[in-house]
Amino acid sequence: MTKDSHLSSKDVLESSLLHRSLTAAPAIVTKTSGPYLYLSNGEKILDGCGGAAVISVGHSNPEVVKAVSDQLSQVSYIHTSDYTTSVSEKLANKLLEKYQDKLSKVYFVNSGSEANEAAVKLATQYFFEQGKTSKSHFISRNQSYHGNCLAGLSLSGFPARRVPYEQIISDIFHKVDPAYEYRYKHKAETTEEYVKRLADQLEQEILQIGPENVAGFFAETVVGATTGCVTAPKGYFKAIQKVCQKYDVLLILDEIMCGSGRTGTFFAWEQEGIVPDITTAGKALGSGYSPLAAVFITPKIIDVLKKGSSAFVNGHTYQCFSLSSAAGLAVQTIIERDGLLTNVLEMGTYLEIKLKEKLSQFDIVGDIRGRGLFWGVEFVKDKRTLEPLDPSLKSGPKIQSLILKRGVAVYPGFGTKDGYSGDHILIAPSFDVTKDQIDIIVDTIAQGITDYIDI
Amino acid sequence: MTKDSHLSSKDVLESSLLHRSLTAAPAIVTKTSGPYLYLSNGEKILDGCGGAAVISVGHSNPEVVKAVSDQLSQVSYIHTSDYTTSVSEKLANKLLEKYQDKLSKVYFVNSGSEANEAAVKLATQYFFEQGKTSKSHFISRNQSYHGNCLAGLSLSGFPARRVPYEQIISDIFHKVDPAYEYRYKHKAETTEEYVKRLADQLEQEILQIGPENVAGFFAETVVGATTGCVTAPKGYFKAIQKVCQKYDVLLILDEIMCGSGRTGTFFAWEQEGIVPDITTAGKALGSGYSPLAAVFITPKIIDVLKKGSSAFVNGHTYQCFSLSSAAGLAVQTIIERDGLLTNVLEMGTYLEIKLKEKLSQFDIVGDIRGRGLFWGVEFVKDKRTLEPLDPSLKSGPKIQSLILKRGVAVYPGFGTKDGYSGDHILIAPSFDVTKDQIDIIVDTIAQGITDYIDI
Repeated sequence: MTKDSHLSSKDVLESSLLHRSLTAAPAIVTKTSGPYLYLSNGEKILDGCGGAAVISVGHSNPEVVKAVSDQLSQVSYIHTSDYTTSVSEKLANKLLEKYQDKLSKVYFVNSGSEANEAAVKLATQYFFEQGKTSKSHFISRNQSYHGNCLAGLSLSGFPARRVPYEQIISDIFHKVDPAYEYRYKHKAETTEEYVKRLADQLEQEILQIGPENVAGFFAETVVGATTGCVTAPKGYFKAIQKVCQKYDVLLILDEIMCGSGRTGTFFAWEQEGIVPDITTAGKALGSGYSPLAAVFITPKIIDVLKKGSSAFVNGHTYQCFSLSSAAGLAVQTIIERDGLLTNVLEMGTYLEIKLKEKLSQFDIVGDIRGRGLFWGVEFVKDKRTLEPLDPSLKSGPKIQSLILKRGVAVYPGFGTKDGYSGDHILIAPSFDVTKDQIDIIVDTIAQGITDYIDI
Repeated sequence: MTKDSHLSSKDVLESSLLHRSLTAAPAIVTKTSGPYLYLSNGEKILDGCGGAAVISVGHSNPEVVKAVSDQLSQVSYIHTSDYTTSVSEKLANKLLEKYQDKLSKVYFVNSGSEANEAAVKLATQYFFEQGKTSKSHFISRNQSYHGNCLAGLSLSGFPARRVPYEQIISDIFHKVDPAYEYRYKHKAETTEEYVKRLADQLEQEILQIGPENVAGFFAETVVGATTGCVTAPKGYFKAIQKVCQKYDVLLILDEIMCGSGRTGTFFAWEQEGIVPDITTAGKALGSGYSPLAAVFITPKIIDVLKKGSSAFVNGHTYQCFSLSSAAGLAVQTIIERDGLLTNVLEMGTYLEIKLKEKLSQFDIVGDIRGRGLFWGVEFVKDKRTLEPLDPSLKSGPKIQSLILKRGVAVYPGFGTKDGYSGDHILIAPSFDVTKDQIDIIVDTIAQGITDYIDI
């Protein structure tokens, strides 16, 4: 690696790389190590979110680096039409060994976006193979995010990502309300009644489209970037699954952000008492060492494929890519050996206590919610009415930026309430986070909020 | 790496990994090195196709392995909302330095599929920013392949990949005829007349949809897996570009398979005398060391974004991923330093001569076509009438399999003629291929064809 300190913001802005913004230059990271990012300006950042909840075994972990390097030296690329590698076989077997009664196969792709596209196609093919070709509509929820390729974008109920593209989104994609107790459970309603209302709404939507036309219902088990770590009300997923089963609609849970151990169990749905027909995963699965995402498939679906064409009609050049499998296998081995899921649960509890202790005092902190090492802090103008802050203030990104200035990275969110107003930040440290690091993360968040209020 | 020789076909078939087929076990590759793949059964395969034309600097190249390993040790993951890395900046600048007058920015994603999704969205946003929101339809060609995510699948004109999914493909995606001289130029027609007929057809299609509704025309500069290395007739792309410009339709060339040096110039369009508005690339760009694909964007589009929202509304977790950039930078450095594009041209000429010399004799070899190190051999039942072989014989895959049994990997194709009948194989060795290797590849292909005829 060459030194990067000579690269100026102007160099970066005028470079040939298309950044997320054409007007603001991103900072240059010159080194990552464990929980830290080092910037070219000399700053050291404690990573409290792993980008968008990507990191599970820290940055630049030498064991994972060695596994990737060894894999490339041994087998760098094979095409999966004719070949496989033991490392991809091993990762698949390792991930499913505890779920042999529930899951049949796993399929690796490069990204959560690709995983959700594959899930849409798999659901469609599942019905196609049974001659139910009209079952091709999908229902998902508002304020959801399921990726940026066309099917995932169409499933996503988030205006900021959809607005320029409304014209290319097909009307086979339908929306129902999110399960978002803090904002949408009526005061007079019990949780049970709220869940029933949501399940009834899904049933009505299926009936309106026609059950013979509906292939699948997509939801994030714990909603990620759009609303900020919103867990479902108790009993929601059981009720939703009942509706899906009644109408032969596949339940597809998107665990790209909340899964792979992030909430303390490998699948977030383990805490909901259900098994979805298809699960997608990514991010923490590969911990940022390689583009690794996965589609987990139940026997029900594999059996239909086996009796039919015997092949899922979806191929990618880097499908089940050996480098990504090597990274994933090393990451999973570390998580298991070091008992990191226990740490997720223990540190998750500690993080919850600390967040509530340090942030509840602020008038603008409306809600603190999450599970495991996946926590959201929602900001409001008024704690009693839940009125959001003025969207033009861009408070979510602004607070995130003030926290970053003090040396801690959290992930910003906006449009939290309804896609247009509402602000939050998301905290999702690496699974090996320590109490001391959590103290720094939470104290710095409190300082950042104070900075925001003082502006 | 553990030894893999203990893994049986049964282990592989019954593993938790979803392979391309649920009934046939792929072979286990235990080592890759330079032009060779080594299988667990002791076989050594000379790689004549790099999977689907992926490999440009050989397998397990120690320089690339070191670059990836060093990068992960230095900076393993950053999120591009706030950060960038010098390696991604460098790769972008290196790729565009020779095209400063033609191209403005490059955007890195994980796969050709993601790149084409991004291209569809970028074209849509380009018109959205100008208030031309109805411009949201796309035209592409039959017998094309543009990826497996929903937009790419919808663009692709290949029945085998589309059949189970016809119900989820939106009617904003339209098709015109491929530019496929060998099969579709009328005997009485000159090439010029054939080109005019195709350009007129595109113009009619635009007029029928309404120019105010058409955003882009997609084509592979040299068609890849679906028809097997079919170059466009002379003047085709100039004529097509003229039609696109007349109706304010973006020309988007998919060079995922044929680009990144595969035909002897970095962009295949350099040999067509045009610059498309958007180019997508992948495969040889990263040579199988990391999922790397790219979207190359002209100033015309970037200028519209700059005057508008200043941001392309499309984000991915592994967008501009440092590991992939490191792999790509190492690959490009080797290609440049070792003069591999010259070798592509020289060995490409040699490959053409050898293929024609050794294969023309066979009654079932109808056409040998291609460019650089990207060659297709199309099989027919009758050389004069061009009647394809009986599709139920699956001759493309069968011939490929017989060649593989003799130790050389080529890439099979079927549905070559019209998506349903026709067979071919595709030859696309690494850019550092030698004459001796080409001799073995071509001689083995000839033997495989003989084996097929003898069955």
